[in-house]
Amino acid sequence: MALFIQFIMKIAKRMDLLGSETAFAVSAEAGRLAATGRKIFPFHLGDINLSTPKSVINAAKKAIDEGKTGYCPAPGIPELRKALAKDVGDARGVFYDVDNVSVQPGGKPSIGKYIAAIMEKGDYVLYPNPGYPIYESQIEFYKGIALPYGYINTPEGLKLDFNAIEDGIQKGAKHIFYNNYNNPTGASSPVEEIERLAKLVINNNMFLISDDAYFDTLYDGEPKSIASIPGMFERTLTMYTFSKKFAMTGWRLGASIGPEKVIEQINRLNVNMESCTTHFVQYAGLAGLNAPKNETQEIIDILRIRRDRLVEILNEIDGIEAHLPEAGFYVFPKITELLKNTGFDDVENFRKAVLNETGVSFCGRHHFGRPLNDEKDYYIRLAFSGIDIDDLEEGMLLFKEWINNNSK
Amino acid sequence: MALFIQFIMKIAKRMDLLGSETAFAVSAEAGRLAATGRKIFPFHLGDINLSTPKSVINAAKKAIDEGKTGYCPAPGIPELRKALAKDVGDARGVFYDVDNVSVQPGGKPSIGKYIAAIMEKGDYVLYPNPGYPIYESQIEFYKGIALPYGYINTPEGLKLDFNAIEDGIQKGAKHIFYNNYNNPTGASSPVEEIERLAKLVINNNMFLISDDAYFDTLYDGEPKSIASIPGMFERTLTMYTFSKKFAMTGWRLGASIGPEKVIEQINRLNVNMESCTTHFVQYAGLAGLNAPKNETQEIIDILRIRRDRLVEILNEIDGIEAHLPEAGFYVFPKITELLKNTGFDDVENFRKAVLNETGVSFCGRHHFGRPLNDEKDYYIRLAFSGIDIDDLEEGMLLFKEWINNNSK
Repeated sequence: MALFIQFIMKIAKRMDLLGSETAFAVSAEAGRLAATGRKIFPFHLGDINLSTPKSVINAAKKAIDEGKTGYCPAPGIPELRKALAKDVGDARGVFYDVDNVSVQPGGKPSIGKYIAAIMEKGDYVLYPNPGYPIYESQIEFYKGIALPYGYINTPEGLKLDFNAIEDGIQKGAKHIFYNNYNNPTGASSPVEEIERLAKLVINNNMFLISDDAYFDTLYDGEPKSIASIPGMFERTLTMYTFSKKFAMTGWRLGASIGPEKVIEQINRLNVNMESCTTHFVQYAGLAGLNAPKNETQEIIDILRIRRDRLVEILNEIDGIEAHLPEAGFYVFPKITELLKNTGFDDVENFRKAVLNETGVSFCGRHHFGRPLNDEKDYYIRLAFSGIDIDDLEEGMLLFKEWINNNSK
Repeated sequence: MALFIQFIMKIAKRMDLLGSETAFAVSAEAGRLAATGRKIFPFHLGDINLSTPKSVINAAKKAIDEGKTGYCPAPGIPELRKALAKDVGDARGVFYDVDNVSVQPGGKPSIGKYIAAIMEKGDYVLYPNPGYPIYESQIEFYKGIALPYGYINTPEGLKLDFNAIEDGIQKGAKHIFYNNYNNPTGASSPVEEIERLAKLVINNNMFLISDDAYFDTLYDGEPKSIASIPGMFERTLTMYTFSKKFAMTGWRLGASIGPEKVIEQINRLNVNMESCTTHFVQYAGLAGLNAPKNETQEIIDILRIRRDRLVEILNEIDGIEAHLPEAGFYVFPKITELLKNTGFDDVENFRKAVLNETGVSFCGRHHFGRPLNDEKDYYIRLAFSGIDIDDLEEGMLLFKEWINNNSK
């Protein structure tokens, strides 16, 4: 036997099932262009270019100074779990206790952990598409069957495609991901839609994962959670994140909140995957929940100005139709006519041309799940969380000019 | 159809395969006792009751103030990846570049991510037992076949059981977890042992995961990594953590370091599981790598005093045989005679009796993997990282008295 065998690293087959968040690839592409000295207008990523509130920052520093730098319990520090139970419960009109809360390093970990803990191999799982691409990725990684449901474009905005949801239920779907205040479409459900969905979930003995990433970024009125519908408390896992409301994307702090039986299993996964979430960061989050309202309101106020201006400019452009999102950071305009006018038959080519020729960087619908069979229209997603109003206007001016110069 | 169906939450079958880190349960048990007002002597957990170095803390605060609070790349910030490549490579006599490093929220995530990325379902995987219980847990969770190998007690300390390793290779083992400077046994490999293991790995076309959690806590001399043996670079994934050397357990910062093909896959899992590791914490880690040596040396000096005293006291007790660990925080004394003298036939009952009657809290061998078939001796693990020298001596005095009072 030879001493050295040529070593060929083999990747496990399950990795073929794993998807990605291709918005990060657009971000990297824009970054490479920026590195050549080009000015980039970053509409591509839901990151926030605003400061984390002072009270959150001060609490983090204080916790470090007080030595909150050792391990803490895998489900999170009791103070934060209690505070989240109250805050999240109150905002949703339900009662959560400390054992209903598992602290996570971000909003995202709840997706894979729910699936690992509850979804059986071969289970059918409904998920929004366009939607956050990690749902599809994690369902398939754990060998579930991912059933997409889309949105229908109406004068009142994008609405859940209940035909697709009911088709999925007919096939035997047991779980459904629901992202009210949706990324990327900006769609939000009126109460009747929430009630109709809840009824389907209850009547068909399903479980629902409510991705509430943008629940606290509703610009007007009070957000409504499906967990508050009678019969849904025991069937809902809420994915909570500090990222958006508190401009804490890079702090990595969130929580899984729901029935104790699910949370117990997620806690077991915490022990296996990361031991605990960064100790002192949990005190920072606790301070955020107790922060003066003006600190978080300021973030919303700035975002609202950007949102209104962006939608206004977009709707001035021939061939673009943009709804005003009620929550979140994203505008999801239909550009079917625009593509025709500019001679493109593919959103990716259009996106690249705009990026390279103007520096305006955004994502396409194709970054948020595989296209559905019956799609006829084209969409792009513009995030307004990471760009100041001046750059937003400058970028949109360049975009408009480019369209004028390139329209037939 | 009734409107409300009685909802019974079913847990996915794969969760039956998931293990845990039962040392945390001992910690919780001790915590409950402490809550009744009892004084506890915490020898149970590898947490550190020393401060994180000042330069690390200051760098974290500075990074927060400079707005390193948004997302960063999923593989980590380039500055930290570069610095880790150099630091970890230099200490191991190999050349790593930025693409060989994937930053992680702790040392632990590398275990599950390697297994998910590379281990095929049904693969045989060797792992140390007694050892860190998450190896076994993650191998079985992803449906590999976990093959334990133990240690042989010699006058020079505990040594790898090569018979068990060779048996595993005969069965077809493709992967081996290797934790030089082992938790819980305190075992460290002389060069010949490292070379013998490397030869087996190379000749049998295997891949090795080197858990280097305690690599940087060697008390005397220079640590040696198996990655430095010719032919091993392409076959070794190093699990790196900031937790131990920098007293940063609760910061959650570590890295997977190894061949680019493995790291690429681990980066894909980062995107799916947590987006990125806390942004500003990465700058803190970077400062740690560049910190004045006296800051980290101080931690080692304090630990050395505790280690020496603990081993000295233990060896004064009839029926206890304790080796001096060359690295890490753990003493793993044989207590076979002691159990006989005190009339116990089970370590868990002995442990509970000592805890309840003296407040001295430690783990047993059974917290570090299922017992092997041929085990005849009994062991406990005492960590000295979380207890000051005064309490260490006070606790050991109580332990000695208790043994005197309870020996036949």
